[in-house]
Order: sequence, then structure tokens, then C-alpha cells
Amino acid sequence: MRDWNTQARNREARLARAAHLTQGKTVEAKDAAALLSAVLEPGDRVCLEGNNQKQADFLAKVLAGLDPARVHDLHMVQSVLALPEHLDVFDRGVASRLDFSFSGPQGARLAKLVAEGRINIGAIHTYLELFGRYFVDLTPRVSLVCAQAADRAGNLYTGPNTEDTPTIVEATAFKRGIVIAQVNQIVDSLPRVDIPADWVDFVIQSPKPHYIEPLFTRDPAQISEIQVLMAMMAIKGIYAEYEVNRLNHGIGFDTAAIELLLPTYAESLGLKGRICRHWALNPHPALIPAIEAGFVESVHSFGSELGMEKYIEARPDVFFTGPDGSMRSNRAMSQAAGHYACDMFIGSTLQIDLGGNSSTATLGRIAGFGGAPNMGSDARGRRHASPAWLKAGREAREGRGLMPRGQKLVVQMVETFREHMQPAFVERLDAWELAESAGMDLPPVMIYGEDVSHILTEEGIANLLLCRTDEEREQAIRGVAGYTPVGLARDKRMVENLRDRGIIRRPEDLGIDKSLATRDLLAARSVKDLVRASGGLYDPPKRFRNW
Amino acid sequence: MRDWNTQARNREARLARAAHLTQGKTVEAKDAAALLSAVLEPGDRVCLEGNNQKQADFLAKVLAGLDPARVHDLHMVQSVLALPEHLDVFDRGVASRLDFSFSGPQGARLAKLVAEGRINIGAIHTYLELFGRYFVDLTPRVSLVCAQAADRAGNLYTGPNTEDTPTIVEATAFKRGIVIAQVNQIVDSLPRVDIPADWVDFVIQSPKPHYIEPLFTRDPAQISEIQVLMAMMAIKGIYAEYEVNRLNHGIGFDTAAIELLLPTYAESLGLKGRICRHWALNPHPALIPAIEAGFVESVHSFGSELGMEKYIEARPDVFFTGPDGSMRSNRAMSQAAGHYACDMFIGSTLQIDLGGNSSTATLGRIAGFGGAPNMGSDARGRRHASPAWLKAGREAREGRGLMPRGQKLVVQMVETFREHMQPAFVERLDAWELAESAGMDLPPVMIYGEDVSHILTEEGIANLLLCRTDEEREQAIRGVAGYTPVGLARDKRMVENLRDRGIIRRPEDLGIDKSLATRDLLAARSVKDLVRASGGLYDPPKRFRNW
Repeated sequence: MRDWNTQARNREARLARAAHLTQGKTVEAKDAAALLSAVLEPGDRVCLEGNNQKQADFLAKVLAGLDPARVHDLHMVQSVLALPEHLDVFDRGVASRLDFSFSGPQGARLAKLVAEGRINIGAIHTYLELFGRYFVDLTPRVSLVCAQAADRAGNLYTGPNTEDTPTIVEATAFKRGIVIAQVNQIVDSLPRVDIPADWVDFVIQSPKPHYIEPLFTRDPAQISEIQVLMAMMAIKGIYAEYEVNRLNHGIGFDTAAIELLLPTYAESLGLKGRICRHWALNPHPALIPAIEAGFVESVHSFGSELGMEKYIEARPDVFFTGPDGSMRSNRAMSQAAGHYACDMFIGSTLQIDLGGNSSTATLGRIAGFGGAPNMGSDARGRRHASPAWLKAGREAREGRGLMPRGQKLVVQMVETFREHMQPAFVERLDAWELAESAGMDLPPVMIYGEDVSHILTEEGIANLLLCRTDEEREQAIRGVAGYTPVGLARDKRMVENLRDRGIIRRPEDLGIDKSLATRDLLAARSVKDLVRASGGLYDPPKRFRNW
Repeated sequence: MRDWNTQARNREARLARAAHLTQGKTVEAKDAAALLSAVLEPGDRVCLEGNNQKQADFLAKVLAGLDPARVHDLHMVQSVLALPEHLDVFDRGVASRLDFSFSGPQGARLAKLVAEGRINIGAIHTYLELFGRYFVDLTPRVSLVCAQAADRAGNLYTGPNTEDTPTIVEATAFKRGIVIAQVNQIVDSLPRVDIPADWVDFVIQSPKPHYIEPLFTRDPAQISEIQVLMAMMAIKGIYAEYEVNRLNHGIGFDTAAIELLLPTYAESLGLKGRICRHWALNPHPALIPAIEAGFVESVHSFGSELGMEKYIEARPDVFFTGPDGSMRSNRAMSQAAGHYACDMFIGSTLQIDLGGNSSTATLGRIAGFGGAPNMGSDARGRRHASPAWLKAGREAREGRGLMPRGQKLVVQMVETFREHMQPAFVERLDAWELAESAGMDLPPVMIYGEDVSHILTEEGIANLLLCRTDEEREQAIRGVAGYTPVGLARDKRMVENLRDRGIIRRPEDLGIDKSLATRDLLAARSVKDLVRASGGLYDPPKRFRNW
């Protein structure tokens, strides 16, 4: 007779080993290492919460400090590698296998550890994909999460940075895994319950509040006039043309410039109420002027942004907030919204090839993809129509004898040269060489050319939807690639033909006066301007206060 | 100065109008109509919970009975139209606009009401798409949900049929909407908390327990020998070839036959442990023999299935269950898993055209799509590899000069003739005419040909991944379309050529002895056999007990 209850009994054994450390569900911080040693078993699949914002940093440190003779070969399944401790666990031999989504600042060290054979990477995912696997074949056995506060029963209050917590905890708790939460404080009564106590096994008050990275703050002072020009082209040549009302912006100065041009340039074109009404977006400070100007009806967020708390609380008609006034973010649901309910994703990249494939992977770094592949791909399961989606679908399919279908707008926005005069356009992505050196099954492409609808540079917009052959596509890309080698190798006659057909459009084709592309067009030219626009509600982190 | 707090104040006004009806959060059933009249306002966006299983049937009845002079022009945003009351609300003038996903049994009446101009359909969605819009541009103002039980604080216990409730409630509660729950009972202490009380405004004990439809129960006695043959072909020609380990099965007898052949035919091919280990699937009774035989490692479910409660509780290593032993289902997360973490979707349809586009829409019925478009489309945001996904991607892209990429297996499994000798293969989908008559933007296609990898009929398997031209694709489809007019019009030489190249495969090409395709191969031949296989734990609904 097969035993069908091994997971629950193994769970009980783990809890029994930890029983002497707890009072109710509470464990003291000094006993955290003992707790992890007691409940973890070698080979466990472990989710250590950390996305690009909040971090279970105390638990990360404790985990990295465990004795590898006792706890080893853990299989980490987590969204982001952000902290040094996230790699220390591998360096020290506590963990050996990794499935993840994004490794921003740790990308170089990750590549090094992989090359040394210290980390065996399962795969790199987009967030929602990794979350999906939590319920299929990567269910965590132990999850180490973080919250603002817990009550004595173990209910959790995650505050504005709910992010991944509900998804991680649900997958773990209902498969008889163990959930350990670090919290900033333990209180008698929570402002609201974000995670029911039933789903949580242990709560530890960490010695200091968990870290949150202000990832989405961009200082308007750093926006260049070229970025202003590109933002004008985006607004006039794409947002207005397709009537884009539901969208996500990638992170960076390019899209911050667009946000800051809504109340000025877009308003002057009569676009208020006609574009940019609904967002799946973190609360970008750069969006404040557009919100104040009445462009924005709603924003649902993956996570929050440091300093935006009071502003969000004062604008509840726009944001999703709880009865306590703070935001409820939810990365899984916001990614689903970004995939299925948005008409456009626009973001930047590091390299684009002649097929329109783009990647942020560069040699010596394994960076991961975050949410871009989910939001920057055509949602082929989508069935509801909108003007933007229908127009994009028509452009892509007209005259090809295909069943009519809509299509998402996926815009890659890059200057032709990036930092250190590296060309953004290349014949061959670095991803190919990285795949070979790291033994990946496929080159790590962030957004596939097939899913890209437009490429926007300072030279113009290439509408890939209208291209009908691989050759047209290649020339459309070369035609906006400026003075990069890829751009210089264009077939001039063909590029002029593409321009005549509206497949390539220059600023002048869009009726944009380049001389107006100055920083004066920005609705805020500094962080201080953003504070002012918010009526003093936005409280930027210290590093952004230069006045 | 703009007022930024209109939603919260409007919410307070609604609550104040209902204050005289409540004790704490509890409202008596006799006051339900008064409650809805008090909190609803004309034009409200309302989510009435009802998926294909559990139904907020009491609240549906109360809503449909409201005075349309007081409450009118509601905009219903709900997964499924299942009950007559779901259409009565339109018939009576309480509601006028509809966004939804599926209308199974009400499809004909829905088409009639649309034709009469009584319902204005926004769009038909796949579930996860509709959920995404709840956070973007279709956020409910009032949600009417259902649960097994509530405690006096308003915490909800949804039991095994959690389904859509967390998603609906989260979107509504955190945008200052109003959440009303009907529950079967109000108790002092819940077996577990599925929805925190903070998120719920009113609880009503309904006069009788909410309805649950046993939608996924298929009586093995009704499985034909043709279905056994097709199941053998699926297992040997697709599951084994691609090593499919993570999958979703559509509803119906075709896939039930596959489930029942795992412990017999698949076992005889040595496939145990090599295929079908992880599922995103409701707890199909037909899966019991495969679970008992050790094929299945895990099942995550959209919802539950009536009669499976004790079996699930006794097999916690396989299912996601809570500390109370009952399942935690979650449609949003299971759909995310079906989209991103599964290598295959296999299901049936009513019509397939020469491009491989399929639809369940037929004239005079607006049926909707349910989860099929989400699971039956290539997940282009996916980045993790598996043998099945890599092989499908290679087959589709080899020799075409494209960036390498994996692809999902999307299998359409149909007999060439369906009920009443209607051909399943057609030159032109009924969807075209339906779109025209109902004023839809696009023909309602369930699964687009571009996303279909294989079509499986009793005549053979057409591998569309390997087709390189539209003509090859058309002949591959004709080549498995049997004696339908579409099949008879095949180019015989070209079909033989496709067969030589392995693009079409007949049972004999797969080494399948058709004479073995008898009902004897089914691991259970009746519902009673399923009960026996479960060790008496499966308790089928009365209508399936014929002994």
C-alpha cells in the first residue's frame, strides 16, 4: 500500500524539531538560525522572497550563514537575486540549484559562479511563469517571506509592498510546506490582513525593517533632449495613432520622459482622456504630473515605490488601496493584467538584432528577464477587442489570408548608441555566446522579434507590423539604426521605399518640430519638481534629494 | 481642486444606506433584496460569482428580482452565465451590459437576447484575461460571491471550490467596492480562512447551500472504441514522443479516455514516470486509476469536483489541500500554471477549418471560450525549457532562419463527424456568420490555427508544426478529416507525401494495432469501477449512480 500522506507527516516532523523554539508562532530573531536548521532538509526546494523591491533580507542572511554540513543542496526558486546573500548561499554550499527570474545587480557574480560549477541553473523565467511553476513542478517546500507586521495569531500585513507574498505563501502552505515570515514588528492588531494566519507557520521580528529598493524612481534632471524627442515620437506616432489607453511602461529614463510629456506635449495635442487612462505599473514618481493633470484613471501595481506612500494614500481614486489607506500590490495579478488587459508594453533593451530580437544579456552577466517577456509578448489567448489591438492586428495580417486577430503593441525604445558608445543594434546578439558558455538550451532572448511591433530610436519609428518579408523587416530595422554599423549598412533605396509606405517614419514625417524637443517640455525637470507637483505628498528617498 | 476620494465616499454612502439591515457584517436572507437595492446604483459594474462549478445562486435570484426602476443598466462582469437568473437580470432590465467568458447552457438564450438588443456584449474573454481586466478597466463596483461558511467577523471559508473568489474579492475590495458573500452557514470558528474578513462587507446565510455543478465527471460507460483508438494514438504518437509531463486536459470523453488508458496502455509501453506527472486540472474522477497506479505526482486545480472530496482528502501528496484536508483551488493561479507551466493542452472542439482554426461557436449560440484560449495558445512569454517544448519549437522553426524558441503543444482532438453526423471539419467556421449577425469585431475563434500543433482524429495525427506552407497545412488537415467533404477533397498524392515525411501519421504508422482498441483497455469501464478504484472514497453524485 502506497503512503499518500508523506508530505504532511514530513511537515509535522519538521514542526516538531522546531517546537522548542517557538511561543505560539513567534520565534525570536536570535533563534532564527536554529529554526531554519531545524525545519530545512538537504535538497529542499526553498523560496526566499525577494523581488526587485522588498527583500526578506534578514532571513537571507540567516540562511546564508547556516552550516552546509547540515543544510546543503537546497534548490532555490525565487523571483530575484538582488542581495549578496542570495549568492552567498551558493558560494557557501548551502544551495546548489537555482530557478529564478531576474538577477539585476548580481548578474556578473552569478555568471562567475555558474562558470565555476557552483550553481546549476534550472531556468530563467518571467515572473508569472515562475509563479505558475510554483503550482506545478517547482512548489516550494519551505518559503521565507517578509511582511511589515504580524499579529500574534500569525496574520500578516504586507502594506504597500505585498508583491509576491500571496502567491508564494499559497503555493507553499497548501502543499504542506512551511512558511516562515520575517516582519518589522509584531502588533496586537493589524491595519489589515493581507495573508491569513492559517497560511503561516512561524513569525520572526527581524532586528531591523526589511530592505526596500526605490527601483522605479528616475530623476527628471537626467533626462536628455534626445529622450524628449523620442518621447514626442512615441506619443504622436504610437500612443495617439493607436489610441493606447491601457498600458505598461518598462523601467528607465526613456519611458519616464513619456510620462513627463503627457501633461505638456500630449495635452497640447488634445490627447487627454484619449490615451493612457489605465495602467499596470508601479507607482512611478514620474507619473505624478500626469495623474495631477487628469490623464490617469487607474493604476494597478506589482509593488510599491519608496516615498510614494502618502501620495498614494491621498489619491485613492487612482490606486488600489486598503481600508488603512496603503496600497495593495500583487505582482501575479498585475502581471496577468499586463499580459491580458494592456494594449501596449513599451520598454528599453540593450541589444536588438536584425530580426528585431532583443536581449539584456551581455557577456559575463546572467541578468534574467523580470516581467518583460510576459508583458512584451503577444497575448495569444486574448479575445477582447480594443481599437489599439484591432489596428495592430489588421496591420500585421492584412492581405495575408489569415484569420483576423488582434495583436498587442510591443515597442522597443532605444537610442542607437548606449553608454560607452556601444551600438544598440547588432548583427548577432551576445545572447548566443552567453548561451554557449553557460550551457543554456536557447539564447536568452528578452523579447522575440516576432512579438515586437515597433522599434523607436532618435532616428525614427520602424513599424514591423507592416513588414511583409524578412528583408523588409531587416531594412526597417537598419533604417532606424542611425550611425551604428547596422544602420550604415542599410539599403538606402529600400529604406526610402519603406519610408514612402509609412513603415519607417522620421520625426518630420510625424509633423514633429525637433527644435521643440527640449527639456522645457518636461512637466517636471527635477525630483524637487515632482515633490512640488505632488503638493508635497511625495517624499523621495534621501539619495534623490539634492536640494 | 479635484476630489480624489470619490470612490471611498461613495462606498461610505452605500454602506450607510444599508446600515439598518446589518448586525455586524451579517444580513438576514429575507433582507437580501433590500441590501442589494440599498448598495447598488444604476450603471454599476457588478461581478456575480459563478464559474462553471459553484454559483452564487441565491444572490443571482435576488438580483434578478430587483425593481428595475430602482436598479438598472448594471454592467455584469462575470466568468460564466450558467443559471437562468444570469440572463433574467437582462431580460428584466436590471442589467444591460455584459463582459464574460463562458455561457455553456445559456448560449442559445444569450444569442436571442443579444439579437433583441436586450444585452450589449462588451467582449468574450478567456478567464485569466477577464481577471486581468478586473484590475485595469473592468474593476467591479459591487461583487456578489459565495463561500461555504463565514465566521462572525466575516472571514470566509470557500472549501474545495475556492475558484474565482480570491481574485474577484481582491479587485473589488481594494478599489473601495462592496463585497457581499452568500454562505451556506455562519459558524463560530472556520476550518480555515480563505478570504480575510477585512475584504468582505456583508455576509448572508442563504436559505439553501449554493449549487455546484459536477461538470468534470464523465461516465466511462459512454466512452466509445473510436475514442479508445484516438487515446492510444495520443499517448503513443504525442505524449510519448514529446515526453509530456506537465499538462492540462480539456473537458470531455476524448480526454477521459486518455486518462483511463494511462494505467493500461501507457503502462504497457513503459511510460509510467515518463509522462503525465504534473497536472493543472480539476480533480477528474477519470484520473483516479492513473493516480492509484502512480502516474501522477501533483494536481493543481481551478475548482473541485463534486464527490471527489474524500478521495482528495485521502491523497494529500497529490492535491493542494489545506490543514482541514479539503482542497484549495484557485482559478487564476491554475490558469497561470496552465499557460506558463504546462507543455501541452489537449481538448476537443466543434469545428476546425482549413487553417486549423477551431471554434465552439455555432449559429444561434454565443458560447464563449472559458479557459481554452489561455491554455490553448503558445505562451510566448515563456522562457524555461523542457524536452517537449524544445522539440515542438525545433519542429516548427527548423530551417526557417528564425531565432530558436520553444513552443507549446496544443492538440485538437476530434472525431471527423460529431453528433448528428455534423462534420467537424469545415471550409468556413460558423464563427464568421455569428460574428456578422452579432456585430462582433472578429469571428469568435477558440484556438487559432497558428497555435495548434497537432490535430488528432480517428484517421490519424496531423503534425502542423512540420508544415512549411499554407498548402501543406491545408492538406495535412484534409488528410486526417476522414469522409467529411473536407477530407474527401484532399490531394491524395500530397497527403501520401506528407505521410511519408511523418507529418501525417496513421495508427499503423505508429505501430498501433487497431484490433486492440476496445473498451477492455479502459482502466475503469463504469462509474462504479471508478468508485472501486478509489477504494470507495469517490462518492459520485446521484445522477451518475446507475447501479
